Amino acid sequence: MIRVALDAMGGDVAPEVEVEGALQALASLPQTFCIQLLGPAAALEAEVDKYPDADRSRIEIHDAPDIISMSDKPLQAIRRKKKSGIVVGLELQKTGKSDAFVSAGNTGAILAGSTLLLGLHDGVERATVATPFPTATKPVLVLDAGANVDCSVKEQVGFAYLGTVYMRDILGQANPTVGLLNIGEEDGKGNTISREVNRALKQCAGLNYIGNIEGRDILAGHSKFGHVDVVVCDGFVGNVVLKFYESVARLIFGLVRGKAPDILERADVRDAFQILDYSQYGGAPLLGIKGVTIICHGASTSNAIKNAIRVAVQAVEAGLSSHIGAEFASQEALAST
Amino acid sequence: MIRVALDAMGGDVAPEVEVEGALQALASLPQTFCIQLLGPAAALEAEVDKYPDADRSRIEIHDAPDIISMSDKPLQAIRRKKKSGIVVGLELQKTGKSDAFVSAGNTGAILAGSTLLLGLHDGVERATVATPFPTATKPVLVLDAGANVDCSVKEQVGFAYLGTVYMRDILGQANPTVGLLNIGEEDGKGNTISREVNRALKQCAGLNYIGNIEGRDILAGHSKFGHVDVVVCDGFVGNVVLKFYESVARLIFGLVRGKAPDILERADVRDAFQILDYSQYGGAPLLGIKGVTIICHGASTSNAIKNAIRVAVQAVEAGLSSHIGAEFASQEALAST
Repeated sequence: MIRVALDAMGGDVAPEVEVEGALQALASLPQTFCIQLLGPAAALEAEVDKYPDADRSRIEIHDAPDIISMSDKPLQAIRRKKKSGIVVGLELQKTGKSDAFVSAGNTGAILAGSTLLLGLHDGVERATVATPFPTATKPVLVLDAGANVDCSVKEQVGFAYLGTVYMRDILGQANPTVGLLNIGEEDGKGNTISREVNRALKQCAGLNYIGNIEGRDILAGHSKFGHVDVVVCDGFVGNVVLKFYESVARLIFGLVRGKAPDILERADVRDAFQILDYSQYGGAPLLGIKGVTIICHGASTSNAIKNAIRVAVQAVEAGLSSHIGAEFASQEALAST
Repeated sequence: MIRVALDAMGGDVAPEVEVEGALQALASLPQTFCIQLLGPAAALEAEVDKYPDADRSRIEIHDAPDIISMSDKPLQAIRRKKKSGIVVGLELQKTGKSDAFVSAGNTGAILAGSTLLLGLHDGVERATVATPFPTATKPVLVLDAGANVDCSVKEQVGFAYLGTVYMRDILGQANPTVGLLNIGEEDGKGNTISREVNRALKQCAGLNYIGNIEGRDILAGHSKFGHVDVVVCDGFVGNVVLKFYESVARLIFGLVRGKAPDILERADVRDAFQILDYSQYGGAPLLGIKGVTIICHGASTSNAIKNAIRVAVQAVEAGLSSHIGAEFASQEALAST
């Protein structure tokens, strides 16, 4: 039985949304996992009690009364709030009592906690947040999506390998293609660092690198060099694009709701707009750590939490973390020969 | 009479779209301007002849047989193709025979040509492409949108002043607000350069700087610090976001056309989606040069060309270039005291 620890106090509407998402996951996903709810025990007991049909045999409650807020400084929060959901959940995983951690809380604290408590695989410079972007066909994985800025060439090359293993393990792409987010397709386009990263990626063994791609190619899912599965970028631009994209959905729904609300009742229209609903993808995996952490948006719905739990279970089942370790070990071995 | 030189061979469907756009502008805008069409004279004569109702008294044709393609190297193209629309149009402006230049051609060549032939105002480090992004209320001006990468602190501070003057002159904002595109709102967030630019902008006289904004605030038109008129960023991230945004519109229209095409017939739905139609904004002004250049998208429609001509006329009428010169002169004077 896979044990998924869920920070029940992370999101904007905690613990209601987290508990609802956990119960949806237990009711609708294959029964290969149980949930470890993390938060103030009495409050969580009361919340779960609202659902008399819940499968209590697959729910554990772990007391974690400390609350890390969105404005807490990450490192300080991890060091001082030892009984927070983030620290308790990651300690469980570190000591072999849990297999995966899911949180919609303070991203910096989740990142710092995962790096400090679980550690990084040898050869990984920094853990990275990978975000699946919906496209008209299949999702494209963008990384880094905001965990790291001022990324070195070596780090960005690392993102390419991390994304490749994730696409293989979780999205079943046998030989995923990698593109570098840039401002032109030709070699030589870009800023100083992107030109260097492009040159480095072309030399990498074991990567299906197609070259530079542009902003428009992310959602198209392809550039003129072919389809794109993994998009590598510095976390600054990744974060700006990710937040911009979320705002597009909000803007369009807002305008349609204001001017032509009836069309949102139609199944075909909802189907067309579904691509804007990032909650279906659930969460963003933190890649490079020795373990499994899934980061959810602070505004996650219960459906997003459910899907993040699904991704966590898939990551454990696929052996994602050990595959990443093996990939980087072979790169290191290659580099030292 | 304001003289607007239009590169008739710039866009993807030239000269048909350019000539159609010019004639739409002549027919529908206030009659304060005439058009100088630039391209192979015989071909342009033939194209204009297709419109027997055209006001020929306000159309000049200037022979410019050289064609600069999208793949031509900018500086080389400007130096070698002296009879291209870009060089001929900018030479007309340089020698006082034209007031503004509009082109949907090679952006790099337009930028290089404008900088070399018209020159930069004293104190301007580099010319910048400013792009109006539609929002639910009024447009937000993003600069730089791709002309410059690896932008220094001084350049980005310059963008803030350039955008401020543009918003005052062209969009009638008396005291436009400026935000710095970043990955968090608090001071101290961001990468090395964005933290420095934020510190520098806080010290600037004559700017209504509100602080860091995030990717989601561009289309919202406000951050938690208030509404935003001008968004300052490095051209790398500006270009990625701009191209990404264009692709969102394409994706959504494509999906709706595939799944629920009938709703696009409805006026209220078209009204809601109008925000995605960047052709209404026409073109992106090149700011910092001694003169007026408007850069259009290569895929511009005739409506976009018409609106770019409208913006060019407004820029001349408002005295945009001389206001920018005065703003930078006063900054330089301030700095040297």
